[in-house]
Amino acid sequence: MKEIQVIAFDADDTLWENEPYFREAENKFCSLLEDYLPHHTVNQELFKTEIQNLPLYGYGIKGFMLSMIETILKVTENTGHVRLVEQSLMIGKEMLSKPIMLLEGVEEVLKELNGSYRMVMATKGDLMDQERKLIQSGLEKHFHHIEIMSDKKVNDYRKLLRHLDCAPENFLMVGNSLKSDVLPVLELGGYAVHIPYHITWIHEEISHSIEHPNFHQLENIKQIISILKN
Amino acid sequence: MKEIQVIAFDADDTLWENEPYFREAENKFCSLLEDYLPHHTVNQELFKTEIQNLPLYGYGIKGFMLSMIETILKVTENTGHVRLVEQSLMIGKEMLSKPIMLLEGVEEVLKELNGSYRMVMATKGDLMDQERKLIQSGLEKHFHHIEIMSDKKVNDYRKLLRHLDCAPENFLMVGNSLKSDVLPVLELGGYAVHIPYHITWIHEEISHSIEHPNFHQLENIKQIISILKN
Repeated sequence: MKEIQVIAFDADDTLWENEPYFREAENKFCSLLEDYLPHHTVNQELFKTEIQNLPLYGYGIKGFMLSMIETILKVTENTGHVRLVEQSLMIGKEMLSKPIMLLEGVEEVLKELNGSYRMVMATKGDLMDQERKLIQSGLEKHFHHIEIMSDKKVNDYRKLLRHLDCAPENFLMVGNSLKSDVLPVLELGGYAVHIPYHITWIHEEISHSIEHPNFHQLENIKQIISILKN
Repeated sequence: MKEIQVIAFDADDTLWENEPYFREAENKFCSLLEDYLPHHTVNQELFKTEIQNLPLYGYGIKGFMLSMIETILKVTENTGHVRLVEQSLMIGKEMLSKPIMLLEGVEEVLKELNGSYRMVMATKGDLMDQERKLIQSGLEKHFHHIEIMSDKKVNDYRKLLRHLDCAPENFLMVGNSLKSDVLPVLELGGYAVHIPYHITWIHEEISHSIEHPNFHQLENIKQIISILKN
């Protein structure tokens, strides 16, 4: 991959832990409503509400909070006590104050690559929250450019590449989501590295496997170093 | 202003109407709670809650929705019916679906300037919502770069200028907020044009007037054309 000039990293569950905080929040939320419906049914309702609201709210914790609240209205058929709403707000605010836990090897890999490549962080989510996490992570200094994207479809990457003035064949995307970090980049003619995280939001899952000359599946981020030398 | 190379435009209440939608939403919200407290007291509570939440939620409609809901809990002392919450969610979702009403002269001015300057849209707010408004506005084609900022303080503009690779003396910011669009830009050594909108969110108001060689106060956006020739 000697032609790579720009490396873009996804953030949530690629650089730092994220999905466990959502799972923890979902569990707490389902417990709030266990007098009404079993855990997994509440969770299904929440997921359905989130997906319905995605075009309106986009990704991120604020949209998740609003979807929790809407789920209370649905599950309790507008009879629940407002304290349930209060507790959901608390669950969300707690998520927005979580510490940043870097994944293993992240710091050393970024340090080693910075200087040889233009380094980009390319992530979905709430603007404010992703900036907070980046600053708290201490990783900001390694990145030449930060792109917080409303979505990660082919057209979003096309815009990003134009903005970075980078041809697809000089671009490598690194992330934990085959759907958001890998497939659209391969479609454009770029390179992609997939580093699975141990849990994936169901919305990011795809059912087929990928075989493509520009694609690499790694077990941890440190393996990027040797891949780049080939 | 012959040295200007980049012109950045604020969006809400500079390119299109925004604040009237917030005022309308606030009015509806205060009416929901009129059995508990008078309109202006509810409005004050809502404003207080919004400002408290600003560091956590940032600017935009989703944060506003969450603050409305929190205000219900406070004003009703956790005794209000969840239907109040339902109605607040509806007020917010309605805001997120409002049509884009361009302000007078915007389209012709952008058309005339595009080609002679690098044109940037620089706005605060929710990523998803601002992108929706830009696309619906039909103005996207006039801009070389879109920057959706979590805040508009001196340091945020410093980052923007670095990112645009533009010296302050070649930069002009156009907007309706003295606090967010004018003062920080003048502080950096850039140029600023203020075009007041007929209503301003109290959080954006400042009490003193501005006199500065790099500052121009205009009545409407069309006057920019002649200012730029001087």
